[in-house]
Amino acid sequence: MAEAAAAPAVRAAVGDSEFDRDTAVTRRGPGVYDIDLSAGWSILGAVNGGYLLAVLGRALGDALPHADPFTVSAHYLTASRPGPAVVRTETVRTGRTLSTGQASLFQYDDEGNEVERIRVLASYGDLDALPGDVRTSAEPPAIPPAEQCFGPEDGPDPLDGVSAITERLRLRLDPATLGWALGKPSGRGEMRAWFGLADGRDADPFSLLLAVDALPPTAFELGLKGWVPTVELTVHVRCRPAPGPLRVSITTRNLAGGFLEEDAEVWDSADRLVAQSRQLARVRLG
Amino acid sequence: MAEAAAAPAVRAAVGDSEFDRDTAVTRRGPGVYDIDLSAGWSILGAVNGGYLLAVLGRALGDALPHADPFTVSAHYLTASRPGPAVVRTETVRTGRTLSTGQASLFQYDDEGNEVERIRVLASYGDLDALPGDVRTSAEPPAIPPAEQCFGPEDGPDPLDGVSAITERLRLRLDPATLGWALGKPSGRGEMRAWFGLADGRDADPFSLLLAVDALPPTAFELGLKGWVPTVELTVHVRCRPAPGPLRVSITTRNLAGGFLEEDAEVWDSADRLVAQSRQLARVRLG
Repeated sequence: MAEAAAAPAVRAAVGDSEFDRDTAVTRRGPGVYDIDLSAGWSILGAVNGGYLLAVLGRALGDALPHADPFTVSAHYLTASRPGPAVVRTETVRTGRTLSTGQASLFQYDDEGNEVERIRVLASYGDLDALPGDVRTSAEPPAIPPAEQCFGPEDGPDPLDGVSAITERLRLRLDPATLGWALGKPSGRGEMRAWFGLADGRDADPFSLLLAVDALPPTAFELGLKGWVPTVELTVHVRCRPAPGPLRVSITTRNLAGGFLEEDAEVWDSADRLVAQSRQLARVRLG
Repeated sequence: MAEAAAAPAVRAAVGDSEFDRDTAVTRRGPGVYDIDLSAGWSILGAVNGGYLLAVLGRALGDALPHADPFTVSAHYLTASRPGPAVVRTETVRTGRTLSTGQASLFQYDDEGNEVERIRVLASYGDLDALPGDVRTSAEPPAIPPAEQCFGPEDGPDPLDGVSAITERLRLRLDPATLGWALGKPSGRGEMRAWFGLADGRDADPFSLLLAVDALPPTAFELGLKGWVPTVELTVHVRCRPAPGPLRVSITTRNLAGGFLEEDAEVWDSADRLVAQSRQLARVRLG
C-alpha cells in the first residue's frame, strides 16, 4: 500500500461532494444536459480542462448504456467560462461490452447563440466486468511520502488568488519537480504529485478525468512561463481506483515547433495504474 | 543521419504511388467523399487501421482549411472490409492556426444501409508554419542498421498469404523484438522496425498515420496470439518527415483487464521525432 496523505477530519462521500455537485448535469431531454460550470475549478480565469472533461464524462455516462469511461478523446475548441452550459450527446454505437458516444459542450455568446467549447469522442464499458489479469511492466512513480511533499499551504503560492482549483484539491507536489516555484526550474519535463480532493472524497473514474489535467504544467519545469492551452487530450481509464490518495506523474519528452505532449499516469493506493493520458498542448516560446 | 534501408531501383513519388492511389478520396459533394477501400492493406482479412486513418486524414485535409493533421483521434466501431465506402466530414471550428473537424467512414450492409466503421476528431494546421525550435529530450530508438533487421522476405513469414499489407511495406524488424516469430517471445512489450513503403515513396504526414499502426502487435512479444483490435487510436504529427526511411518504436507497459496500450514513436532520417501515438486495444487472454 502506498503511504497516504493526511485525510480531513470528515470525508465527503462519492456522490455527495463538491466534485459531484459541480459536475452534476441535469437532463433537459434525450441526450441533452444542462450544467452551471462552477467558478471553483478555474486556473488563471479559465475553467480547468480536466473538470470540463469530467462534466462531459458524466453526461455520456448517463446517456450511454455503459457507465464507465474507458477511453475519452477531447478536442478543446474555445475557452470555457464559469456559468451556464449545455452538453449535447449522441450515441454512436452500442455494443455488448463497449458503447461509443460523442458529446459537445456549448456556452452562449452575447446574442444567446451556442458556441462550442469542447467536442469529445468516448468509448464506455463496465470496469467491474474486466478480468483481474494484470501483467503490467509499469512501475509506480517514485514520489516521496506526502508529508515530504509541498502544497499551496506550505509557502507563498505563485498562483495565489488566481487559481480557485487549488482550494478544491489536495495536491502535494514532489519537491524534485518544484524548482519552477523557486525560480529554478529543473529543465526536465516532469511533474509529480499526490492528488486528492480537498473534502476527502475518494477517486472514481470521473475524478480520474480531472486528475490527469490538474497538476501545474510540465512546461514550468522546462523554464517556460504563461499558460499551455490544451489542443487535444485523450484519457484511458484502466481500472476502478481503490480508496485513498492517487499519485500522478506527468512527463514531457518532446517540446518542438511550439507544441508539447504531456503524458500522465495515475496510480491508486493499491499500486494499480488506473489511468493513462496524453495531451497535445501549445507553448509560447519566449 | 540515420542509416538508410536499401531503396528500390525506381522510387515512387509522393502523390503518385500505391499509397496515394489507395487513399485517394473522390469528392461527391461538400464534405462528402467516396473511396474504394483497397484489399492491399489488409491484415488477416481486416483492413489495417492505420490505412483507414490515412483515408480519413486525406478527406479531412481536403475538407478543412488547413492541410496537415496535427492530432487525430479515432474510435474504431466495426471492422472495415475492402470495397466501397463513404467518408462524411464536418468542419467543427476554423481558426487562424488550427482547424478542427470530424469525419466518419461508412460502408454498406446487405440492404445498402450505411454502417459506421470509424469516427474521428482531428485538429489540422500547417506544419511548415511551425517555429523550428526543438528542445526535445526524447532520443531515437536503438534499432540496428536495416541490413541487420529482418523482413518477410528473410524467412517463412508467419502471416504468409493472409497479410497483403506486408507486400506494400518495407518493414525491417529489429531482431531484438522478433522472438515471437521464432516461438520465443521476449516477454517485453516492445516492437521496433524500419518502416518504408514498398515502392519507395517518401513519408508525408498521411503516411505517418499508417506507420503508427503497421507493425506486428507488441502483444506477440508478450506471448499472446490472435488479433488485438484497436478501440481508440490518437496520433500527434509533430513535424513534416524528411525523405528517407522511418524508424518506428512501439511500447506496451500496461497489459491489464483484457486491454493494453500501444505507444508508438516515429523518427525520420534527420533524427526528428515526427509522430507520437497511443492506442487502446483489446487482448484475448488465453
